[in-house]
Amino acid sequence: MPFNEPEKLENIVVPMFAEDVEKRSVVIDDGVVETILDSSDQDDCAVLRVTGDVEVVWGTDYVRGSKFSLYELGYLSLYDLGWYLAGANLSDVAAMGALPIGLLSVIRYPKDMDDADFKSVLEGIRDGCASSGTRNIGGDIGSAERLILSATALGVVERGRALIRAGARPGQLVMVTGYTGLAGAAMKSGVSARPEVTQTEAFKAALQKWKRVEPRFEHARVLVQYAPHVGACLDTSDGLLGAISEVAMRSRVGVLVQENMVPVHPTVADLAKALDEEPLSLVFGDSVDFELLFTVDQHVADEIATALRDRGLDSFVIGCIREEPGLALARPDGTSSIVPGVAWHH
Amino acid sequence: MPFNEPEKLENIVVPMFAEDVEKRSVVIDDGVVETILDSSDQDDCAVLRVTGDVEVVWGTDYVRGSKFSLYELGYLSLYDLGWYLAGANLSDVAAMGALPIGLLSVIRYPKDMDDADFKSVLEGIRDGCASSGTRNIGGDIGSAERLILSATALGVVERGRALIRAGARPGQLVMVTGYTGLAGAAMKSGVSARPEVTQTEAFKAALQKWKRVEPRFEHARVLVQYAPHVGACLDTSDGLLGAISEVAMRSRVGVLVQENMVPVHPTVADLAKALDEEPLSLVFGDSVDFELLFTVDQHVADEIATALRDRGLDSFVIGCIREEPGLALARPDGTSSIVPGVAWHH
Repeated sequence: MPFNEPEKLENIVVPMFAEDVEKRSVVIDDGVVETILDSSDQDDCAVLRVTGDVEVVWGTDYVRGSKFSLYELGYLSLYDLGWYLAGANLSDVAAMGALPIGLLSVIRYPKDMDDADFKSVLEGIRDGCASSGTRNIGGDIGSAERLILSATALGVVERGRALIRAGARPGQLVMVTGYTGLAGAAMKSGVSARPEVTQTEAFKAALQKWKRVEPRFEHARVLVQYAPHVGACLDTSDGLLGAISEVAMRSRVGVLVQENMVPVHPTVADLAKALDEEPLSLVFGDSVDFELLFTVDQHVADEIATALRDRGLDSFVIGCIREEPGLALARPDGTSSIVPGVAWHH
Repeated sequence: MPFNEPEKLENIVVPMFAEDVEKRSVVIDDGVVETILDSSDQDDCAVLRVTGDVEVVWGTDYVRGSKFSLYELGYLSLYDLGWYLAGANLSDVAAMGALPIGLLSVIRYPKDMDDADFKSVLEGIRDGCASSGTRNIGGDIGSAERLILSATALGVVERGRALIRAGARPGQLVMVTGYTGLAGAAMKSGVSARPEVTQTEAFKAALQKWKRVEPRFEHARVLVQYAPHVGACLDTSDGLLGAISEVAMRSRVGVLVQENMVPVHPTVADLAKALDEEPLSLVFGDSVDFELLFTVDQHVADEIATALRDRGLDSFVIGCIREEPGLALARPDGTSSIVPGVAWHH
C-alpha cells in the first residue's frame, strides 16, 4: 500500500529535497537571498531572508502533465513530467533575467499511485531544479482524482534590471536564444502515430525538448548586464509567433521578421518532411521550446552575440522592431506578407 | 461563446485586479516590499522590489474547490471557491506572522465555462484578498477538463520574527485564536443530507467558515511583537488535533490539553446534537477553520490575551507543553487519557 501523506512527506519528500548547503544563498549585486526554512522544516511556508535592495520575481504555472498527449501516448515518463514542471516554472524566472531562488511544487496524486511513481515525479522535479542550479524548497502534497502538477518559482535580480515584455523600441533588433519548433514537431509527430515518423531519430531528438526543459538562465544573465539596451524579453512557451505577437502587443510596436534569418533546426526540417508540413509553420507554431525572445539596441547586438558565444551560447537575429503596428514576414524574394494566424490587438 | 484565454485576460482578469495604489507597498520595521509589476502587466512573472533586511515567506496550496462535497452539494458557489482559494493560501502567510504581499492564482477552467462563472471565481479571489488587505498580483489561467484552483501567497515579516512550527518549549501554554470544528461540522451536516440538520440556522452559520475564510493576520501580528516568547504557531487547516499533533511532532515535545478549557462554539454544540456526535470530536476533528494554534511563555500569556482582547480579538488557553512525549487530554474529573486518533511519530 502506498504511504499516506505524512509518511510520504517524512520518507520520500524530505530526504529527496534534503538540504544542499551550497544552494541556500543567492548573491547578486546589492543583495542576498538566503533560504532559512525549506521543505525539510514542513512549515506553513518556506522562509527567505532578503537583505539589500533587490527585485524579487515570482511566477506560477500549472502544467497539463498527465494530460499531455505525449504522456498519454507513452512518450513521456513521470520523471519527465516532474522535470517539465520545474523547467517550465523556472523558465519564467529566467525570462525576467533573475537568478533562481527556489521552487514550490504542488503535487496531487491519485490515492492508488505507487510510491515509486510518486518518487519519480519528485526526482524529476529535483533534477529539473538542479540543472538550473536551484532546488525545490516547499510545496503542497495531497491526493486528488488524478495527478495534478503546479508550481511557483522565485528569483532575484538586480534592482531596475528585471527584463520585461513591454520594453521593445522601434529600431531594436529581435533575437532568439535558440531553435524553436522542436517541441511542437515532437508533439505533432507523436500524435500522428505514424511509425515512419515516430520511429525516427529526429522524433527522439525533438522529444528531448519535452523531457529536459532547459531554462535560459545563462543567456538571461548576460542580457541583464546590458539591461538598459535590452527592450523586451520573454520565453517562447507559447511558440515563436506567440512570443513575437506578445512583444508587439505589450510594447505597442510592430515586428518585421526576416524569413531567411529564422533558424530552422535540421531535426525540425526532417520532421516537417516526414509530416508533410512547411518547416516554418513548425518553427513559428505552438511549441514549448522555452527559448528566450528578446529585443536589443542595434549597436550592442554584436557585442551581446559575442558575449553569448564566448559562453558557448547560441543567439540569432531574426528581425527588427518598427513603429508600424502588426507583424510582417519579409521573404528572400523581396516580397513581404502579414504573418498568418496572429491575433493582433490594438 | 466564452472568451478565449487572451480575451479573458484582457477583458476580465486585468480590470478585475486593476491596480489599487494603496496596496502596492508593504512596510515593516527595517524593510519595504513594493509591487512594481502585477497582473495588469501580463508578464512572465510579478516583480517586487525588496529593500532592507526582512524575511519573505511563501506558501502554496491547491484547493479541491469544485471537488469539495459542499460545492458538489450546492452549498458553496464559485465565488465562495475563489474566496476560499485566497483565504486558505493567505492563512499560511498569516501563520508565519507575516503581512501579506500578494497572491498568484492558478485558475484552470473547463472550455465551456461561462464568462460570468469565471468572473465569479475571480471576484471571490479578489474579495478574499481584499478582506486580508492584499490583492492578486499574478498567476496562470488556461483551460483544463474541470475547474482547477491553486495559489501561492507571499508575505513579509521582520527578520528573525517568523513564527514557526518547531519552537514549542516545555512549560509554555497552548493557545488558539478561536473556535474550531465549525467547518468540519458544516461538512458533516451537508453530507448527512438530513433536512433536520441542513435546514437549521446552525448549519447556515457553520457554512460561513467555508464561504468566508478569514486568515488570522491581526492575531499573528500581535504575536510577532512577542516573538521571543512565542514558541510554535501554525494554522488549524488540518483540524485542532492535527495542529496539536504537528506542534508536538515538530518541536519534539508533548501536549497536555485541558478538556474543559477547549472552547466549544454553540453552533458546534447544536450541530453535534443534530448529528448525534460528541461535540469534542467535532471540535478536535478534521476542520478547516483556519484559526491559529500557538504556544507562549506562561508569564506573557495574560499580556498577549489582553493585547488581543484590546483589538477585539479572541484567544483561548487550552493546555500546555510538557517534555513527556505524546498528546494527553485531562478530564474535569481528574482522569486523563491519550487523545484518540493521533498519528504520533517519534
